[in-house]
Amino acid sequence: MELIKDILAGNRRALARGISQVENGGADARALLAGLYPHSGRAHVVGVTGAPGTGKSTLVNALARTYRARGVSVGIVAVDPTSPFTGGALLGDRVRMRDLAGDPGIFIRSMATRGSLGGLARTTGDVITVLDAAGYQRILVETVGVGQAEVDIAGAAHTTIVVEVPGMGDEVQAIKAGVLEIADLFAVNKADREGADHTAMALRMMQGLDPNAGHHRRGPGGKHGEPGLQSDGSWLPPVLKTVASQGEGVEALRDWVEIHAGMLRDSGELARRETARAAVTLASILRDQLLAALLAQIPDRILLELIDEIARRDLDPYSAAEKLMPALAGSPSL
Amino acid sequence: MELIKDILAGNRRALARGISQVENGGADARALLAGLYPHSGRAHVVGVTGAPGTGKSTLVNALARTYRARGVSVGIVAVDPTSPFTGGALLGDRVRMRDLAGDPGIFIRSMATRGSLGGLARTTGDVITVLDAAGYQRILVETVGVGQAEVDIAGAAHTTIVVEVPGMGDEVQAIKAGVLEIADLFAVNKADREGADHTAMALRMMQGLDPNAGHHRRGPGGKHGEPGLQSDGSWLPPVLKTVASQGEGVEALRDWVEIHAGMLRDSGELARRETARAAVTLASILRDQLLAALLAQIPDRILLELIDEIARRDLDPYSAAEKLMPALAGSPSL
Repeated sequence: MELIKDILAGNRRALARGISQVENGGADARALLAGLYPHSGRAHVVGVTGAPGTGKSTLVNALARTYRARGVSVGIVAVDPTSPFTGGALLGDRVRMRDLAGDPGIFIRSMATRGSLGGLARTTGDVITVLDAAGYQRILVETVGVGQAEVDIAGAAHTTIVVEVPGMGDEVQAIKAGVLEIADLFAVNKADREGADHTAMALRMMQGLDPNAGHHRRGPGGKHGEPGLQSDGSWLPPVLKTVASQGEGVEALRDWVEIHAGMLRDSGELARRETARAAVTLASILRDQLLAALLAQIPDRILLELIDEIARRDLDPYSAAEKLMPALAGSPSL
Repeated sequence: MELIKDILAGNRRALARGISQVENGGADARALLAGLYPHSGRAHVVGVTGAPGTGKSTLVNALARTYRARGVSVGIVAVDPTSPFTGGALLGDRVRMRDLAGDPGIFIRSMATRGSLGGLARTTGDVITVLDAAGYQRILVETVGVGQAEVDIAGAAHTTIVVEVPGMGDEVQAIKAGVLEIADLFAVNKADREGADHTAMALRMMQGLDPNAGHHRRGPGGKHGEPGLQSDGSWLPPVLKTVASQGEGVEALRDWVEIHAGMLRDSGELARRETARAAVTLASILRDQLLAALLAQIPDRILLELIDEIARRDLDPYSAAEKLMPALAGSPSL
């Protein structure tokens, strides 16, 4: 396949075309991914997630710049599952492109759902695979950090940065509880605003840290000391203050990403995460393909009748599913 | 099944137990749903969705109270997919219960994901079925309105209220684009704050309305007039200002819900939505059951080896799925 060779050779136009192909799905996408997959697995994937208004995009751009300053190539994938029907994704590309334009070491791609419910996490994973195979050394994946789909997407990342801003209300504090588990690093962005220290303190408290201890006193337990790798092998997420628009604190953030990446490699955790991700991806593909194979065997008439029965409340959906399940039995073609 | 009888008889303790059973899944849940499903389909399901901090919970409680004032029974399902591992859901129940306590015409249930990715939308649908069968006339489903999972959950609602607050920034405006399609009604809550009129105007503009026309001038097209049912049969979502904490505007909101419900019934749109929902539910159940049936037939050794090959990049996940698909062929037991 010519496209595979061109992508591996670093042709940007081929890369853009390949990503579109993967997004569109189908047999072409599968052939492309099969060809590229063996060349992937070298990039470190960084998820950047946070509520709207936290300045994620600016932070991602700033982080990309600090990587470029070290000569490291960067792919950026901006995922916005909340605007399925707008041209916002394409527009977003243009705006970002202007900011980081002309640098061959950076490739930016925005994604929207295009109406395919649930499939976004997998498509994002496929796009990451393409950028990875194309040789980008760090891949930054930006998602809106509220909701299950975003947590699923974060599952594709090796290192997840959760972005907060000073002065969030009580309800937002509750949301933090949900993302606490997926955070490897916290960035308190827009830290020149009032309340940054308070927010940083709150995040440390939620990790069970003594909020007044700061990050300079190592306590007796594994969870009361400096952030990073603990003596018991666990990882205590650092809380970093950044002002992304000024580039402040972004180099420190980059350095922490690298420390976390090194820890993942050295501890064998990276291999474990890759295995878990492989299992989830395989299950997701099988779910869709099995359903498609089953439905292809059931005549429309029978299927539509069952659906009508469910809608009319004459039959519950679980019993309907039971009725359809045996239809696979006598099919050697599957 | 004794539990089914007790739930249909209006026993609250049985109802709570039934919902827990449904949440836990398995054969018991399926038997319960099969028994209750024929008794469901009478409730009108209202989705209430919005970003954190918009006051959704307060609005849902206030809306429930205005229904109770008319003698209509109300079930409330609060879904929070962002806090999978916390006890927040249970705590939320207690706080709400205190507010609406002692009223036998109200039943409140909070749900968290409990770690089951993707399954939340279906479980929410099942819980709605149980409350519906138990005789609750209106079911209010509250979700955090950012992200795909929440849009999926909103798919179970007949009428969807999108809640906004005055003074949201540009990035939040972009999110509105994503929820615009699912909104049947807009509530600008906390409307005593500065900027409420501006937000209401922005919402009308996003619907392609003349923002200065207000709601009192009917234009020449189908999309430039008063909200509600248009001459071409389409529905133009009204934009309502509410102060939920004071109960202001909440009766008008309730009345609009009823107008929308009537329109859905009269136009046949309700039946169409029920059919679409039945199809989605059936597909979701089949996906999971097919995968389970397939995996049950594949020896652990083979499965784990394939996953390792994927993780090591020796095999891409689509090719791995292809290898597994034929394993179904010779299985008459499926």
